[in-house]
Amino acid sequence: MISVVLLGAGNVATHLYNVFQDAKHITVTQWYNRHLSKLTTYKNEVEITDNLEDLNPADIYILAVSDDAISNVSKALPFQDRFVVHTSGTVSLYDINDKHSRGVFYPLQTFTKDAEIDFSTIPLCIEALKNPDLKLLKTLSESIGSKHYKISTEQRKRLHVAAVFANNFTNQMYRITHEITEENQIEFEVLKPLILETAKKIQKMTPYMAQTGPAVRGDKKTIKKHLKLIKNPQHKAIYELLTNAILETHGRKKL
Amino acid sequence: MISVVLLGAGNVATHLYNVFQDAKHITVTQWYNRHLSKLTTYKNEVEITDNLEDLNPADIYILAVSDDAISNVSKALPFQDRFVVHTSGTVSLYDINDKHSRGVFYPLQTFTKDAEIDFSTIPLCIEALKNPDLKLLKTLSESIGSKHYKISTEQRKRLHVAAVFANNFTNQMYRITHEITEENQIEFEVLKPLILETAKKIQKMTPYMAQTGPAVRGDKKTIKKHLKLIKNPQHKAIYELLTNAILETHGRKKL
Ligand SMILES: NC(=O)c1ccc[n+]([C@@H]2O[C@H](COP(=O)([O-])OP(=O)(O)OC[C@H]3O[C@@H](n4cnc5c(N)ncnc54)[C@H](OP(=O)(O)O)[C@@H]3O)[C@@H](O)[C@H]2O)c1
Ligand SMILES: NC(=O)c1ccc[n+]([C@@H]2O[C@H](COP(=O)([O-])OP(=O)(O)OC[C@H]3O[C@@H](n4cnc5c(N)ncnc54)[C@H](OP(=O)(O)O)[C@@H]3O)[C@@H](O)[C@H]2O)c1
Repeated sequence: MISVVLLGAGNVATHLYNVFQDAKHITVTQWYNRHLSKLTTYKNEVEITDNLEDLNPADIYILAVSDDAISNVSKALPFQDRFVVHTSGTVSLYDINDKHSRGVFYPLQTFTKDAEIDFSTIPLCIEALKNPDLKLLKTLSESIGSKHYKISTEQRKRLHVAAVFANNFTNQMYRITHEITEENQIEFEVLKPLILETAKKIQKMTPYMAQTGPAVRGDKKTIKKHLKLIKNPQHKAIYELLTNAILETHGRKKL
Repeated sequence: MISVVLLGAGNVATHLYNVFQDAKHITVTQWYNRHLSKLTTYKNEVEITDNLEDLNPADIYILAVSDDAISNVSKALPFQDRFVVHTSGTVSLYDINDKHSRGVFYPLQTFTKDAEIDFSTIPLCIEALKNPDLKLLKTLSESIGSKHYKISTEQRKRLHVAAVFANNFTNQMYRITHEITEENQIEFEVLKPLILETAKKIQKMTPYMAQTGPAVRGDKKTIKKHLKLIKNPQHKAIYELLTNAILETHGRKKL
């Protein structure tokens, strides 16, 4: 049985609490938040506290608090040599105060409080300086049905950049799609199945192999027609840059 | 019962043939291809031909042939005043020879020959110059369980541009994600669930509402950190342009 003390009461902490409660080999022995009010609904299930001085010994302390608070909260913990991890994709392992045994337990997914989360589909990026700690994080991931990946702080920083492309920039492509359809009195609905299929395709195929369309075909005639049709200068700049990126990726001459 | 003559034996024609065969109110009376060899496996199920002169009367002739061939094949059809449509996202309705009653029956999805296709999830963009023809296309869509959208030739051109953003450019975001993970010895697997979730999210929410990350938060500190981490000049240019696009979309000051 792994004993967990959870700190924070936001999106991530709440989802972790729920999945830990359902897991066989994990017990949340305490739940801390600086504002106790957010935890009172749970007071009959778990020991809650807003006082760091009250924290009991546990196998792991999970700081699911805002990025900016990780360093200070870890410093304020009134003990040392215990295993303390944060859940952030961007904060260094070394931001955790060095009086602790340190680690990272970062679930790579967007969380919203009310949306149901299926942890079996969420990759956990784990990091620790000591082997037994790493082993504990592996067991923790497995106990909630998640796949785990050993990712160093340096790798995690780049992974976060990659996630900006995979999520935020991809979503901006959807936004532009939405703008184009609205401008032309077309229902955005028409493109939703294509968007879903595009994401599904690369679950089984590399993005390189999955690419289609005028740029990968080197179909400059269609590209020119499209550039003529696009009036919005921002859309045009993005069309040109990304078309050149595809041409380059697939070894073709740029525009 | 709608009688269909199908022309072409590529991806689209083959998928249409299969779904028409399963549909209650549709009968494929003839299947034409310039090379008969591609059709011979079907010869016991349907009348096949490689001779346009042999074509029988039907309610609709579907030209599922390459974009470049649409105009010529429609011209070569040895009859007039019958309903002839193509299945292309880019070709004008007016490319069909004007001796026919003309229309478009464009399934907005990427087709690959072997992949199973569920037509109930594929939007059909339909266009026709005469009301009874449009009605026939609606019935045809409904008979195969597809949603139909009335889209004019001018709208379809813009829709194709939008589809380049939704599919090709989005896929290039995945490709860059793949490049970043490979460069840093991270498994691309780690990001696949995020990619799928990003596409699923906008099935229920506008892309505007779904946006997250440093740009929409106006978190210039993180953006600067990312730009420092990115060494590949193409990735950097895309990061800057798309970050500015997000900042602009959400009413923030650009970089
Ligand atoms: N949301 C996601 O999609 C996601 C995904 C993966 C990882 N993460 C990471 O997980 C961590 C938590 O994120 P979240 O989304 O759960 O955040 P959140 O919903 O905003 O919750 C933040 C929590 O941190 C607490 N907190 C903030 N400042 C504090 C301070 N100075 N001292 C003590 N507690 C403080 C807040 O306490 P109060 O309730 O008292 O305000 C709140 O409980 C972050 O490191 C984040 O990067 C988030
Ligand atoms: N693939 C997609 O994802 C997709 C999606 C939506 C719409 N479309 C549109 O659907 C149409 C067909 O695309 P597809 O993907 O099915 O193409 P495809 O797999 O390449 O097949 C093209 C077909 O057109 C025939 N053809 C080519 N040139 C011809 C000519 N000069 N005369 C007579 N027949 C000719 C070919 O005949 P042979 O077999 O004898 O070579 C073949 O049967 C195109 O307008 C395309 O834009 C495609």
